Amino acid sequence: MSLIVQKFGGSSVANAERVFNVARIVTETYDKGNDVIVVVSAQGDTTDELIEKAAEINPNPSKREMDMLLATGEQISIALLAMAIEKLGYPVVSLTGPQAGFLTDSSHSKARIRRIEKERMENELGKHNIVIVAGFQGMNRYGNITTLGRGGSDTSAVALAAAFHADLCQIYTDVDGIYTADPRIVPNAQKLEEITYDEMLELASLGANVLHNRSVEMAKKYNVNLEVVSSLEKKPGTKVKEVAKVEKMLIKGVARDNNIARISVVEVPDSPGVAFRLFAALAAKKIDVDNILQSIGREELKDISFTIAKDNLPEAVKVVESLKDSLNYKYYESTENISKVSIVGAGMKSNPGVAAKMFEALGDAGINIQMIFTSEIKITVLINKEESTRAVAAIHDAFMADLPH
Amino acid sequence: MSLIVQKFGGSSVANAERVFNVARIVTETYDKGNDVIVVVSAQGDTTDELIEKAAEINPNPSKREMDMLLATGEQISIALLAMAIEKLGYPVVSLTGPQAGFLTDSSHSKARIRRIEKERMENELGKHNIVIVAGFQGMNRYGNITTLGRGGSDTSAVALAAAFHADLCQIYTDVDGIYTADPRIVPNAQKLEEITYDEMLELASLGANVLHNRSVEMAKKYNVNLEVVSSLEKKPGTKVKEVAKVEKMLIKGVARDNNIARISVVEVPDSPGVAFRLFAALAAKKIDVDNILQSIGREELKDISFTIAKDNLPEAVKVVESLKDSLNYKYYESTENISKVSIVGAGMKSNPGVAAKMFEALGDAGINIQMIFTSEIKITVLINKEESTRAVAAIHDAFMADLPH
Repeated sequence: MSLIVQKFGGSSVANAERVFNVARIVTETYDKGNDVIVVVSAQGDTTDELIEKAAEINPNPSKREMDMLLATGEQISIALLAMAIEKLGYPVVSLTGPQAGFLTDSSHSKARIRRIEKERMENELGKHNIVIVAGFQGMNRYGNITTLGRGGSDTSAVALAAAFHADLCQIYTDVDGIYTADPRIVPNAQKLEEITYDEMLELASLGANVLHNRSVEMAKKYNVNLEVVSSLEKKPGTKVKEVAKVEKMLIKGVARDNNIARISVVEVPDSPGVAFRLFAALAAKKIDVDNILQSIGREELKDISFTIAKDNLPEAVKVVESLKDSLNYKYYESTENISKVSIVGAGMKSNPGVAAKMFEALGDAGINIQMIFTSEIKITVLINKEESTRAVAAIHDAFMADLPH
Repeated sequence: MSLIVQKFGGSSVANAERVFNVARIVTETYDKGNDVIVVVSAQGDTTDELIEKAAEINPNPSKREMDMLLATGEQISIALLAMAIEKLGYPVVSLTGPQAGFLTDSSHSKARIRRIEKERMENELGKHNIVIVAGFQGMNRYGNITTLGRGGSDTSAVALAAAFHADLCQIYTDVDGIYTADPRIVPNAQKLEEITYDEMLELASLGANVLHNRSVEMAKKYNVNLEVVSSLEKKPGTKVKEVAKVEKMLIKGVARDNNIARISVVEVPDSPGVAFRLFAALAAKKIDVDNILQSIGREELKDISFTIAKDNLPEAVKVVESLKDSLNYKYYESTENISKVSIVGAGMKSNPGVAAKMFEALGDAGINIQMIFTSEIKITVLINKEESTRAVAAIHDAFMADLPH
């Protein structure tokens, strides 16, 4: 007998029919003799509707009250899913995040899980109940409801899998696994059977949009067997684990992120602490800087370029402008006409030809590379946004052409 | 400085504008130097929408999961009201029923409050926060969410007023007080300045529909000063207390209840335990019997008539039919064409002419009385439903004609 954690996103429980679809997946797993913990998100647009209700009243509410409001979304889902499972005749109990023992810090709207008090859930599992848990939420030490922020339900599922030493943590989504590229852009993208945590982390941070980084980091830390699988079709998904099977491909995937912006600060006199002052000022405004490229220009003047999330551009520009005198730069540029395209794969470490092959594919397609960043298992280029779809297809073709379709 | 509990029903917080209306009432009370505890119900139709969502999935869900679902309605209201009060610039915190310390028994969907753990709320009041509490809900000893059933938010408010020794418990509604009759039926109905708990109890149980009986019983038990007041207009409401001012009226009100049905079991052989068997069987099906009239008929055969809520008629009929052999009655009758009209007033105890005056008014109006029940402060008659509006008006005129309009 195994313990399996299954997580279902908002679209998987958007209406009564889909709730029953989830109920059937869960009860089939239970019928095979497994203990089952189920984590669900808020139904379809519920969270957006709640945010809209709040905005009508107060465009800038406290995060504590926002968490109080948003937590109702998952609470509705768990009750409805439990009712569907009752209808199918199985023993079931639903638990809010606080009831399930999720204790977090007090960072409302982006709380971190401190620990899970397991007693209540152990009790329910001991009674052979299917346990439905509200994802995305917990409680701080004062008994206030907190939410975990973006990707919170994935994180809830992985945290439960880690705490209860689950044999498997299945993330059900509307895609059926991790692909070598976005199938909407690259029609012959291939589904991966397995992928390592590190590869998944690089893909997720590049906008592959299937698993949130926090949950993958946690899975890696606690060695949780993850599987990304479709809630709509019965077929094998993609397994995420420490060491993946060696496959006949140099790279695991091509990813694109169009939600970025770039700022370049040009001709900064090269004195100690220049970069520190710039990035400390951005950090003080809670602006995450993604990639940084610093180049020595002419006459001991250097250029500093960096990328950030597009939403942060107006505030980042303000920060840069406020540092004009302090940094004594000549001018700055900013643009949203930019896209980040990357290839990821543990295999490229020992294959020096990978970068060359990527640049050749882009060159053949007539696509200009603005900047290049590399890490052990990833090569990223910045290009013009309107060329990004062609770029993904060209790179994918170059690396995957010899794979069976 | 006083402590005031204010309760607002679902229609008072139905949209953003009304939420702000409530926020203004609350903050004006706070501005006068009072501590304020606010109890709110779910917005407008939220509860009905949630019930509909559940019905789509499972027409007969467990009460535990139903409570889990319905509790979200009030949780949405408290967060939105807190956000509105934040917008007005006041310190505020919202608390769910469990967070506010409401400990109940485990009767899901109609739980009774066992006690209120006051620590958290005392803490918040000590910090001069306006405290918003979700009505209608609590938690049992296992940490499961429970709901208090009909009139639950009124009960929550009165329970808080009792536990915190509040100086006043204001129930805000869309009417501006308790009237001598339903103003929609009797245009010259008078608003009462004061009414006793006992009178209010009789009126509430007769369908006056302003305050739920459970809350009035609790107010009487703990001597809570209640006030029914309008959330829409600023004018004095009606105070409910132990001893009301003596007013120049024999009766406090005329009430009507059309949601009843009557069953008569005819010619039952008069043996010991007959009535017990009948009412025990009804109680076993959780059917509340309202009025009972037992009359000796011919030849030691008696007739037993009783009234119940209309919704319970089909099940009550089944019970009566199942007892045909056991009770050995000749036949039974049932009807929904019936209305209960009552007059209530502590003053009638010492005024033997009250009943006569009521029957005279009905007789003058040509209305036939089917049955009569009396208690110390109430006289009830059963009449045909279609005559009930005329009956209320005729009785009201007879008793109130000499009052200033």
